[in-house]
Amino acid sequence: MIGRFKHGNEIFDGEVRGSSVVVNRGLYSDTYLLSDILLLPPAQPSKIICVGLNYRDHARELNMQIPDKPVLFLKPPSAVIGNLGKIIYPDSTSHVDYEGELAVIISKRCRNIRAADAGSVIMGYTCFNDVTARDLQKEDIQWTRAKCFDTFAPVGPYIADPGLDVSNLAIKTRVNGKLRQDSTTANLIFDVPQLIEFISGIMTLEPGDIISTGTPPGVGKLSVGDEVEIEIEDIGILKNTVVAQDYTEKVN
Amino acid sequence: MIGRFKHGNEIFDGEVRGSSVVVNRGLYSDTYLLSDILLLPPAQPSKIICVGLNYRDHARELNMQIPDKPVLFLKPPSAVIGNLGKIIYPDSTSHVDYEGELAVIISKRCRNIRAADAGSVIMGYTCFNDVTARDLQKEDIQWTRAKCFDTFAPVGPYIADPGLDVSNLAIKTRVNGKLRQDSTTANLIFDVPQLIEFISGIMTLEPGDIISTGTPPGVGKLSVGDEVEIEIEDIGILKNTVVAQDYTEKVN
Repeated sequence: MIGRFKHGNEIFDGEVRGSSVVVNRGLYSDTYLLSDILLLPPAQPSKIICVGLNYRDHARELNMQIPDKPVLFLKPPSAVIGNLGKIIYPDSTSHVDYEGELAVIISKRCRNIRAADAGSVIMGYTCFNDVTARDLQKEDIQWTRAKCFDTFAPVGPYIADPGLDVSNLAIKTRVNGKLRQDSTTANLIFDVPQLIEFISGIMTLEPGDIISTGTPPGVGKLSVGDEVEIEIEDIGILKNTVVAQDYTEKVN
Repeated sequence: MIGRFKHGNEIFDGEVRGSSVVVNRGLYSDTYLLSDILLLPPAQPSKIICVGLNYRDHARELNMQIPDKPVLFLKPPSAVIGNLGKIIYPDSTSHVDYEGELAVIISKRCRNIRAADAGSVIMGYTCFNDVTARDLQKEDIQWTRAKCFDTFAPVGPYIADPGLDVSNLAIKTRVNGKLRQDSTTANLIFDVPQLIEFISGIMTLEPGDIISTGTPPGVGKLSVGDEVEIEIEDIGILKNTVVAQDYTEKVN
């Protein structure tokens, strides 16, 4: 697991080993206690490409046809927060939903990558919460406003090894400890290699770009004060709390 | 007019004066001939926020209701090209349209800016071509694929002074010299200050971010080999040519 951290004025990547973080300094390495350094979002994307309606069980639940190609939308970098960052509940909505998702982090600039070669551009995997103002999504033609509020792209905590087999990982969302989404990535309609082929055929991907692969059944509401956790097997738990718009503590 | 340029390995902003570019070096300044240096896109946005259906005359033409709030969508930074950059016509579409637009460049990080204070966050104005694969836009639920291909965000050539009054500027699009769009920014439904208030109430804006304000009537098709010009009074002319997907010359 690789994380991005801040200690004093320095920002660095480090390998997470239990409660320690090992930072490669070239000829030597430094070890920090996880509790002594600040965890940042694991990637700094130039863009976040999200996929709608990409779980078979979710499509069945909604009684919707399986789409014949991925439905894409973008979130801006300004929406990113990391693990333990606060999700700000905007005043302009009264219905904010969680959506737990498996995300892929891109390792290098690329375009027109074939599915068979997708592994060569994957830095690794992490958890993503596609936070959505459902009322605004229904009201607007495009989903931009509903999906792009600041803090609506929690991601992390760390990046899991690109060698991880993500074809059948348990994915769960809990709100205040109660299980609300419970599926497996085996239910993905378009898998990670197919998504990378489709998306990189449209736009050049950059290192750190995030592709979030869609959410399983069970999406539901968040309220101010809630703690929401996205857990993906062998990847980790992304935990965030929801605060009101006038919340003023510094958000990481 | 401020442009972004490259000379050798150096990238810098410079003030365009006729055929010269003056670069402020602190205690002194350098002057280059425009023809001796490479023009880059005038901004490096972290995001591009576009507005749909924002001209009264265009809404009338389409027989559509005037929207009660701006329709937003995003383009990624990977779509940006500058003046004289090549628009690549993707193999996956057979209907690519130009859309000439007035764009605003943001000068500083900001959020929740009121319309009355919008002037304080504007770096200036430029021309934008919201290139769109119309067939894919009609096919998809979201406009992302249709709008986000590489090279589908031509912008420039320069940034005009933020003091410019943009409330009634002629805006024209020509294809191979023939006038195809001919309107004025006086027909904007939501003006620049209103857009900045609405958008910055959703997402934090960053320096260099681009807000493109929508297109007037007369959108239409582009073909490989076409030269498309967006001209806005007192701002300039953004000129690009359309090439096939297998075109291999380096795109700036």
